[in-house]
Amino acid sequence: MPPMPLRKPQILDREEIARSRLFTIESLELRFSNGAERTFERLKGSGSGAVMIVAMPDPDHVLLIQEYAAGFDDYALTLPKGLVDPGEDIVTAANRELMEECGMGARRIEPLVELSLAPNYMNHRMQVMLATDLYEKRLPGDEPEPLVVETHALETLSALLAREDFHEARAIAALFIAREKLRAERHNEPWW
Amino acid sequence: MPPMPLRKPQILDREEIARSRLFTIESLELRFSNGAERTFERLKGSGSGAVMIVAMPDPDHVLLIQEYAAGFDDYALTLPKGLVDPGEDIVTAANRELMEECGMGARRIEPLVELSLAPNYMNHRMQVMLATDLYEKRLPGDEPEPLVVETHALETLSALLAREDFHEARAIAALFIAREKLRAERHNEPWW
Repeated sequence: MPPMPLRKPQILDREEIARSRLFTIESLELRFSNGAERTFERLKGSGSGAVMIVAMPDPDHVLLIQEYAAGFDDYALTLPKGLVDPGEDIVTAANRELMEECGMGARRIEPLVELSLAPNYMNHRMQVMLATDLYEKRLPGDEPEPLVVETHALETLSALLAREDFHEARAIAALFIAREKLRAERHNEPWW
Repeated sequence: MPPMPLRKPQILDREEIARSRLFTIESLELRFSNGAERTFERLKGSGSGAVMIVAMPDPDHVLLIQEYAAGFDDYALTLPKGLVDPGEDIVTAANRELMEECGMGARRIEPLVELSLAPNYMNHRMQVMLATDLYEKRLPGDEPEPLVVETHALETLSALLAREDFHEARAIAALFIAREKLRAERHNEPWW
C-alpha cells in the first residue's frame, strides 16, 4: 500500500525570538491536519548555502582535514567544507574551499548529493561535490591556523570510523555515497 | 609521516549570548597556538543526549518514518530518534522511541556508532543503536500526529537516496554503517 499523502500543518504564527552573529532562532505556531497545535523552534541558516567536497587525488583516495571544532572544543577529522559566498556558484565555492583548506584545485567538480543536518529544527542544506583531476593551488582562507590534510583510502571506511575524531554524520554519509557511486561506475551499474 | 599533534586553542572567554526554550547560543573567544585570535559561536544542546534507531523487522529490512520537519516546513523520511530523558539509559531511550514512533519494541538493542551533527558549531552527539528481534508494542508519544512508518530493504540504499524526502545525513550515515556491519558479519569479517 502506498503511504497516504501527508497534509502539512498550517503555520499560524512565526516570530524571530533570538538572533546572534551566526544564528537566528524562530518560533513557529503550528496546527496539524488533525487539529493538534504545537509550538516548534527552528534555526535559520545563512542564505547562500554550504558546500562539502569529496576530493580525490587519485581514483582510490580522498582528502580529509583536521580542524578545530568549537562545538566539541577539540579537533575533528572531516571533509573540506564551507559557506557559499553571496553570488558565488556552487562549483566555484567548492573549488575555492578546496584551495583554501587543502591547497588543491580540481579540474572536474560534479554534484554528488544534497544533505540536510537536522531538518526537524534547522533549514541547513549542504551540497556535496565530487572533485577529481586535482592540481596544487593554495588560496589564503579565513582559517585561524593551517589545517592538517590527510589522505585516506575510500575503500577502507571502517578504518576511519574506528578513529575517535571521525564522527561527523555529513562527512560519513558523503564518503559512503562517493564509494557507492564509484563502485557502481566501475561495474557499469546504474547509479540512482 | 604521522600527523603533528595539534595543540588546542585556549578559551579566553565564554559567554551565553542568547537562549530560547530549545537553544542556547554561546560566544567563545579563542587564541590559537599560533597566536591568532577569533570569536566563535556555538550552540549548546540538551544535557542528556539523543538516540537514533536502526530497527530491523527481519534480517534484510529497516523501519523508516515520515515526520514533519519544521526546519524545512515539509515531511522528511528519516530514522526514529529522540532525546534521552534525564536519568534514562540509552537502551531504554531507544526502545521507548521505537515504541512511540513505530509501534514496535526490540528484544535486542546494541550500539552501532556515535555521530555528531556539526561539531564546528554544535556539541550535539547522537548514539545510533541497532534494534533487532522486534515485537509489536505501542507507547503514546508526544508526536502531534501519528507517524507514517515505511519498511525498506537495507541493501538498496540507492533507491532511498533517489527520494526527495530522504536527505538527513545522520540517517544516511547510520544506514550505510548498519549495512556495512551486517555484510561483514555475514562474511565473518572483522568489523572495526
